[in-house]
Amino acid sequence: MFHLLDIIGTMAFAMSGALTAMNKKMDPFGVFIIAFVTAVGGGTLRDIMIGRTPVGWMLDLKYVYVIIIGFVLAIIFRKKFDRLRTSLFLFDTIGLGVFTLIGLEKGINIGLHPVICVALGTMTACFGGVIRDILCTEIPVIFRREIYATICILGGIVFFILREFNLESDVLYLATSLVIISVRLMAVKFKWYLSPLENK
Amino acid sequence: MFHLLDIIGTMAFAMSGALTAMNKKMDPFGVFIIAFVTAVGGGTLRDIMIGRTPVGWMLDLKYVYVIIIGFVLAIIFRKKFDRLRTSLFLFDTIGLGVFTLIGLEKGINIGLHPVICVALGTMTACFGGVIRDILCTEIPVIFRREIYATICILGGIVFFILREFNLESDVLYLATSLVIISVRLMAVKFKWYLSPLENK
Amino acid sequence: MFHLLDIIGTMAFAMSGALTAMNKKMDPFGVFIIAFVTAVGGGTLRDIMIGRTPVGWMLDLKYVYVIIIGFVLAIIFRKKFDRLRTSLFLFDTIGLGVFTLIGLEKGINIGLHPVICVALGTMTACFGGVIRDILCTEIPVIFRREIYATICILGGIVFFILREFNLESDVLYLATSLVIISVRLMAVKFKWYLSPLENK
Repeated sequence: MFHLLDIIGTMAFAMSGALTAMNKKMDPFGVFIIAFVTAVGGGTLRDIMIGRTPVGWMLDLKYVYVIIIGFVLAIIFRKKFDRLRTSLFLFDTIGLGVFTLIGLEKGINIGLHPVICVALGTMTACFGGVIRDILCTEIPVIFRREIYATICILGGIVFFILREFNLESDVLYLATSLVIISVRLMAVKFKWYLSPLENK
Repeated sequence: MFHLLDIIGTMAFAMSGALTAMNKKMDPFGVFIIAFVTAVGGGTLRDIMIGRTPVGWMLDLKYVYVIIIGFVLAIIFRKKFDRLRTSLFLFDTIGLGVFTLIGLEKGINIGLHPVICVALGTMTACFGGVIRDILCTEIPVIFRREIYATICILGGIVFFILREFNLESDVLYLATSLVIISVRLMAVKFKWYLSPLENK
Repeated sequence: MFHLLDIIGTMAFAMSGALTAMNKKMDPFGVFIIAFVTAVGGGTLRDIMIGRTPVGWMLDLKYVYVIIIGFVLAIIFRKKFDRLRTSLFLFDTIGLGVFTLIGLEKGINIGLHPVICVALGTMTACFGGVIRDILCTEIPVIFRREIYATICILGGIVFFILREFNLESDVLYLATSLVIISVRLMAVKFKWYLSPLENK
């Protein structure tokens, strides 16, 4: 179940990356690389920073194949993305929840402090998108108007609070994902966002 | 003493990052991340390249707390930065000296060649700012008109020359910091800078 | 022989980086850093991702010296680059072939899957240029209209096919380099490129 969600999230991230790259009129190689870094960039950055090398996707080809499929689907359906927007958004939100949990888990596994684990969860879920935006020479969208990352931090905090109650790990994971996914859905529905900080 | 200077430098770098991010109209999450990478980005890049993982700030939460304080102060005083410019510049210059020394030391500890140690010192002091500028989609300011990095290289060379005289390590550190800090102050006072290389 | 080609490639990459940086009106420090990352950035990224630290150029100063020479030559001849364009293009193409092979080899040495080895070869040859473009706030040229990276992937595939025939490693290396170099020359001569993917 968790593996299936991981795959859905990876594919959604790859497709969102491919879409951004096509908007920038990149060639197929560029579109593929942007799809790739959007999907695995956050986890790669996390693995590099905690010294878990070779990084994850080099040891498990599943991710490479899923990204290739996402890339091909994005090209085939590239003129129909408007109609697919809702499904893609849902998949992306699943990715957000799952990737945050994976990041949290890697940090816990090597005994890092909860604050750092929350940072790793957020990095895993959000920094693929940051690298995507930088490679497209855009200021990362999550630094400007999406509360995307803030939801991951919230999810991480909820995780560590629930963990105090000695829940089974399945329940803990499910509850955290549900918090992240539902807050994200509400954030978009009710247009919650962080205001820019003006200094002038 | 040295630890205090390290904290002052970290906070000054965090505040300079927060200021840049606010100029770009980022939201609070964006401002925090830019503050964070400006403060620890150079050391993180250094740690990753020499294989010192998990990277420094993951093992010593002091940095996270100092950056949070710097971030909050930057927000509170964001409309008063013009009057604080001189203090901030002084703190930033202290950071330049201390971070260069920390980078040099890490390289020496693992037996790297002095040339590489100087590169690591410069990277520690300057590349947080490079990452900050890239995340704000600006060409890094130190590549264009600041002799910032050149001063770190000079400081590194002075360090290895003085080291030949078998000075005590405290004296060596103090002397190197003073060289970096005083050259930086003079550079700004007398408007020293490197001319761009024109190829047309 | 192979070492000589490695040096030629490194110098060509450093000079191409210096040229790009001078076009952006950077100061000498900026030009040097861009020359440096263009030459060793791909290999550095590869080393970090596979956990081969300290990264290559920190342990073998040859690269630092070659880059310094390339940087100085680029400055001296900066107004004559138009006439040197053909030589520089040839050297750059040699670099493409050699760096792809070096990347493939590092992956094979630690037992990674051929697909990942091809990715490492392409990364070694192409991502120095990607980092160069990002530091100059340009969308990486290889994502837009150069089939540069595609040729490295092709070269990697040829390498693994030829490898099935139990060729001697010298013959294998020579054949792969020749494929990469000749396809690159033909690609430029006959103006082969990948069309952008339009999604509007």
